[in-house]
Amino acid sequence: MSFLTFLDFASVLVFALTGALVASRAQLDIVGFAFMAALTGLGGGTLRDLLLDRTPIWIADPTYLTLACGAAVVVFFTAHLLESRYRAILWLDAAALGVAVAAGAGIALELGQSTVVVVVMGIATGCAGGLMRDVVANEVPLVLKQGELYVTCALLGSGMLIVSLQVGLTPDKAALTGAIVTFSSRAGSLLLGWRLPVYRARPPK
Amino acid sequence: MSFLTFLDFASVLVFALTGALVASRAQLDIVGFAFMAALTGLGGGTLRDLLLDRTPIWIADPTYLTLACGAAVVVFFTAHLLESRYRAILWLDAAALGVAVAAGAGIALELGQSTVVVVVMGIATGCAGGLMRDVVANEVPLVLKQGELYVTCALLGSGMLIVSLQVGLTPDKAALTGAIVTFSSRAGSLLLGWRLPVYRARPPK
Amino acid sequence: MSFLTFLDFASVLVFALTGALVASRAQLDIVGFAFMAALTGLGGGTLRDLLLDRTPIWIADPTYLTLACGAAVVVFFTAHLLESRYRAILWLDAAALGVAVAAGAGIALELGQSTVVVVVMGIATGCAGGLMRDVVANEVPLVLKQGELYVTCALLGSGMLIVSLQVGLTPDKAALTGAIVTFSSRAGSLLLGWRLPVYRARPPK
Repeated sequence: MSFLTFLDFASVLVFALTGALVASRAQLDIVGFAFMAALTGLGGGTLRDLLLDRTPIWIADPTYLTLACGAAVVVFFTAHLLESRYRAILWLDAAALGVAVAAGAGIALELGQSTVVVVVMGIATGCAGGLMRDVVANEVPLVLKQGELYVTCALLGSGMLIVSLQVGLTPDKAALTGAIVTFSSRAGSLLLGWRLPVYRARPPK
Repeated sequence: MSFLTFLDFASVLVFALTGALVASRAQLDIVGFAFMAALTGLGGGTLRDLLLDRTPIWIADPTYLTLACGAAVVVFFTAHLLESRYRAILWLDAAALGVAVAAGAGIALELGQSTVVVVVMGIATGCAGGLMRDVVANEVPLVLKQGELYVTCALLGSGMLIVSLQVGLTPDKAALTGAIVTFSSRAGSLLLGWRLPVYRARPPK
Repeated sequence: MSFLTFLDFASVLVFALTGALVASRAQLDIVGFAFMAALTGLGGGTLRDLLLDRTPIWIADPTYLTLACGAAVVVFFTAHLLESRYRAILWLDAAALGVAVAAGAGIALELGQSTVVVVVMGIATGCAGGLMRDVVANEVPLVLKQGELYVTCALLGSGMLIVSLQVGLTPDKAALTGAIVTFSSRAGSLLLGWRLPVYRARPPK
């Protein structure tokens, strides 16, 4: 198994955990957990594959769906042990964002896409699954949470992956760098309040 | 016309009726009815076709769009005769779910997909149109309605279609079995309160 | 650059402006502006390209993303000069709808699609970006705003494009006619209250 495939599996698994946790907050049954886990875990990669005109990877390899359903079962039976499911969602989502950005950008690179497309695929793969999860569950998308970095972290991570390659790192090390930068900047935003200036004007009319 | 094509037409027509009924609850005009009918009727099959890397079937065959628009017109002029549009939506949606699951799984089978993918395509074809309808109309998705079976019915129906084939039924009879199992389990949930245990914990934090 | 490409660029740019203005109402940072601008600007064309089994055009040509990000930057630094951002969104959206409908239908025509598909692609290209913008930002979709024409304008514009071709106009002039009809009917609805009869019944149960 290549390092990129490992990252892709990891992002599916961890995003699926967040989907199942959102299902627990909505008090769904086990099949609802699996549905939300699969949507969240596979959503980003599916969008990336459709945009790049590839058959979504989970159609050829049942491992992806197995991971998502496994995550749903684990959460269904253990979520009550968590002190705060909301904090667990935030942090697992940050971890998943990191690996998904690296996997998405890495796969676009392998396919020989241009730098711009690689960066966009990193962002799309990282953000789309969580966005679908939040839209379907009718929660405010984390992507758009005011006063927090989110898409910015994906952009930073994708960018650093490209820079790392250009300064001579191997693709695997560049992907790892991208994942770490994405996660660290998101963690900095959650823990230390890192943010960009936001647009402020009169209240919306 | 093959039996699968008939099921596919039927699912488009009945889902389109639910889309138009949702449009009537939002007091849209006739074009709004057609828009919601087409989105709901064609959404599930379009997702299935994109995932399986096929051109959506309605692009080659205008019958699908005609059915959806026809449903919109009929509902626009007759919805006031219904005693409860909400109950009509629920029951038509249940019927459409049944045929769409069977059509979706059946088409994936014909394309030679693996068992796992067949089951997932049954679920995706059955659930996606209604999910898009509810997200766009800003209603709580039926898919996620607490204390009701929905995705579970699609899973059961897809599963029974596979089992029926393995015990020797013809593909058409297997598809019919899948449709009946999906609809019956949904009806049992609506009428008799069938459900799976849901996750319950402290209130979400 | 062909006239169709020009229309496509124009629709991306103007839809991106509306996306960025929605971001300003949600008080996002500059990256959030770019995200919403790209989603809104590229959403409709991407859906059209996926449905027609083409690779989305912005993957091959970075101009599209550049336009969307440029629109985001401009809005970030100038939106406070607007007297009403909501009115700016409405009118820019109307202009973008006009050019996007013409570009979407024109491209489907160039690909040799049937009349029905050309009309649907006009509507889908015109409406999908704004719909995604509103769903993600959790606003009532303009598409479904009661008592206003929206999808109807897209339908009229696509239809007039087809009619113009059949009476002998060149493709470019037909596209221009489609854009003008779409925008004018939307403007008539916003300014003069043009509308179709809506469905009215007892209040929804």
